Amino acid sequence: MSSAYQDLTTTWTRLHRYGHLAAIASWDQSAMMPPKGSEARALALAEMGGLMHRLRTDPQLAQQLARADKEALDDFQRANLDGIKRDWRSSNALPESLVEAISLAGSRCEHAWRTQRPANDWAGFLQNFREVLRLGREEAQRLSQATGLAPYDALMDKYEPGTTSADVDRVFGDLQQWLPGLVVQVQERQSKETVIAPVGPFPKATQRALSLDVMKLLGFDFDAGRLDESAHPFSGGVPEDTRLTTRYREDDFLQSLMGTIHETGHARYEQNLPREWLGQPVANARSMGIHESQSLSFEMQLGRSRAFASQLAPLLVAHFGDQPAFEPGNLYRMLTRAKPGLIRVDADEVTYPLHVILRYRIERQLIEGHIEAEDIPALWDESMQSLLGLDTRGNYKDGCLQDVHWSGGAFGYFPSYTLGAMYAAQWFATMHSAMPDIDARIAGGDLAPVFDWLRENIWTQASRWNTAELAKRASGEALNPQHFRRHLEARYLG
Amino acid sequence: MSSAYQDLTTTWTRLHRYGHLAAIASWDQSAMMPPKGSEARALALAEMGGLMHRLRTDPQLAQQLARADKEALDDFQRANLDGIKRDWRSSNALPESLVEAISLAGSRCEHAWRTQRPANDWAGFLQNFREVLRLGREEAQRLSQATGLAPYDALMDKYEPGTTSADVDRVFGDLQQWLPGLVVQVQERQSKETVIAPVGPFPKATQRALSLDVMKLLGFDFDAGRLDESAHPFSGGVPEDTRLTTRYREDDFLQSLMGTIHETGHARYEQNLPREWLGQPVANARSMGIHESQSLSFEMQLGRSRAFASQLAPLLVAHFGDQPAFEPGNLYRMLTRAKPGLIRVDADEVTYPLHVILRYRIERQLIEGHIEAEDIPALWDESMQSLLGLDTRGNYKDGCLQDVHWSGGAFGYFPSYTLGAMYAAQWFATMHSAMPDIDARIAGGDLAPVFDWLRENIWTQASRWNTAELAKRASGEALNPQHFRRHLEARYLG
Repeated sequence: MSSAYQDLTTTWTRLHRYGHLAAIASWDQSAMMPPKGSEARALALAEMGGLMHRLRTDPQLAQQLARADKEALDDFQRANLDGIKRDWRSSNALPESLVEAISLAGSRCEHAWRTQRPANDWAGFLQNFREVLRLGREEAQRLSQATGLAPYDALMDKYEPGTTSADVDRVFGDLQQWLPGLVVQVQERQSKETVIAPVGPFPKATQRALSLDVMKLLGFDFDAGRLDESAHPFSGGVPEDTRLTTRYREDDFLQSLMGTIHETGHARYEQNLPREWLGQPVANARSMGIHESQSLSFEMQLGRSRAFASQLAPLLVAHFGDQPAFEPGNLYRMLTRAKPGLIRVDADEVTYPLHVILRYRIERQLIEGHIEAEDIPALWDESMQSLLGLDTRGNYKDGCLQDVHWSGGAFGYFPSYTLGAMYAAQWFATMHSAMPDIDARIAGGDLAPVFDWLRENIWTQASRWNTAELAKRASGEALNPQHFRRHLEARYLG
Repeated sequence: MSSAYQDLTTTWTRLHRYGHLAAIASWDQSAMMPPKGSEARALALAEMGGLMHRLRTDPQLAQQLARADKEALDDFQRANLDGIKRDWRSSNALPESLVEAISLAGSRCEHAWRTQRPANDWAGFLQNFREVLRLGREEAQRLSQATGLAPYDALMDKYEPGTTSADVDRVFGDLQQWLPGLVVQVQERQSKETVIAPVGPFPKATQRALSLDVMKLLGFDFDAGRLDESAHPFSGGVPEDTRLTTRYREDDFLQSLMGTIHETGHARYEQNLPREWLGQPVANARSMGIHESQSLSFEMQLGRSRAFASQLAPLLVAHFGDQPAFEPGNLYRMLTRAKPGLIRVDADEVTYPLHVILRYRIERQLIEGHIEAEDIPALWDESMQSLLGLDTRGNYKDGCLQDVHWSGGAFGYFPSYTLGAMYAAQWFATMHSAMPDIDARIAGGDLAPVFDWLRENIWTQASRWNTAELAKRASGEALNPQHFRRHLEARYLG
């Protein structure tokens, strides 16, 4: 007779396989699907969501979980059982009808958003979004009841297990004290620098070839993944086959290049999760904050370093031809230019957290019912003004319609970006302490020390430890936001 | 309370949605997936096959079917119930373990075939293929027991409901009488013609642009489908979102162009199936022979006609520049060149049926156990010699390894190609009788009469009637192979 634990792993392997189909269909939905496929795709994904939910809420799982708890399990199995329990608990908090409704409303709203955003059509978006918000609130209430967490915290817990809004308030509260001042200081300092702008156009096909070369430099395994285009860049697919997307503007190659570097960080995490456990929760990425710490390790810590600029410069020359802007020192100044802007995904690492704080404030109030969907634009304008000094009135397109997250019902995700930036700073502080020559090695083209450290300390650890324990094992301490502050001060004021 | 019939349609709608995900993942497997994704994809698709099989073999369906039989249903519902019963009967003939094994073995064999074929590696292919054949025979046995058909007929019935090997023997027996002689006559006649060869190379990107233009001319709806590349061209996806593939050779644009025209015929059938019934068996394409009658109506009847050549010529000039080969008369001679060759998918419409007869003979003997997998190459060589006068010894790549069908376990499909060619000739004979000016209209750029006739008589009829009845309603008679003979004689000896 198989053990209860084994029975549970069999079910979770099945879920992994169903999830594989849903993940590929979701990638396709954003990267490949023509518009008339939308309705059928939404129905198919909702049906699959319902099926997976039924599997996770099968009444016999409660018994299996109780029995497995008493079985002799090693540490790894115990960590896996914890992950299974987490999945089980959150699924049982939600009725299948709600899961399907969330999937359908999210697909529809997101699909319409793709054309509403360029059309600046906030009123049209609202029509779908009200339902997405209503369902998000219901999800938060039910998860709150099941977990004992506050409603917003219960949503955030999906992405950032163990982190509460009290933690976020503390970290973001600190940030708000010193970051706006730093932004002003950095801008003042940079106003005295000369940065030579690159001269375009930069043809799409050339940008794509450059992206592929940089992904190769960054160790992406092209036999286990792809690079495509989508309206909103993302990293999707499955660990065995990761699918990155980017988008190209012919007047600006940096946007797609840095986006690609960012997504490659996500991808290398997925590609290096422990293969022998794939399909089990213990083999999943630890949290979205840790995931973003990988993309931001690549994009910000490594990708905008002086050392990396000297590796990037010859690639730019090879693809676009030589021009003064590609001199390594000038390139580094380009990569570290800080300036308040409207778009989060285009923001530099100095102003980025302010975009996140804005979204965190709004989505928390939305979920807690203090504001309604209609109130978003006014709050957006107000926060953009106070945090970044920018006027966004009437510009929904580059304002509150710019992100895909809310359209798909992903409330509680945004804090992960800034937690990720902080973890990334902490990882690189640790690497610099352990390997004082690491910058010289990177500048000499040897990126292995970075990848080896991340592989050993983060990627292969998957969900073996909780986030605080993972951070302690990797860097000697739980999240310490001071590393992020020191990083910004060293790079931008040093 | 819902009727039993309604309960059944609910289940089949669910199957349609699961099938949607499987169809997109299968398309992706052939058109997009990197090699290391293969194993996980095969497992995910097999898992889905198992799930769909469990749904189709749910014990309560037997009762629902019995009850639905006695309910008041209109003709359309009755035809749909027949389709549901067919699905149910064939699924219940097979245990789930066999369905999953077939899916897994087929995925693995097909995946390996992609590299074994170019490597001419018959021995390597055999290692996977023996298992595929063993499972195919088991499937045939079990379907035979459930349907009362002979084992090979039971497999063919999946693609060509109501057609038996006795029917195929009669049709193919007739063909064998006159077709090899016709091939000789046509070659003799064409040896006196002068055909100016087009001068390449023809860049891939330009060929793709031409393909898209021709698809537009043929009425393909790009908001509900895509054109991509794959090793073996196919038409896949779902009716709401059809996915065609082609492959490009820079020294020969006709291969990809005619392949695209072929797949566009399949796609227009799918895109014009009755929307209000989608998801139900009655809204599916009638049979694979009827499906091929659409691709061959496009590729052979329309696509290689003198009238269409005059439409195609200016497009070729627009994309590749003017050259003597593109003069409409010369182009028509190129399009109707008949010559025995090694590759089925590149064969002209005169020699094509001989490729099918060869495969039909071999696969039938394989399934009936008269020969083993090891015997295929010798039989292949012998038949290629006797039917087409070609020596294929040692050339597995362009011999018995050339098709994808057997690697994936699709035994019993090949006859559909030639039945399709015959139905296509029958449709066009009917159109010519009803609309004597149709060639003049096509030559003048008005393709609407062809599309209107196909839409009204084939596409929107879906599976409302059995195949013989569909043919009678469309053309006044069931399949009559004489139309095909007359078509070949008129076009090639006329």
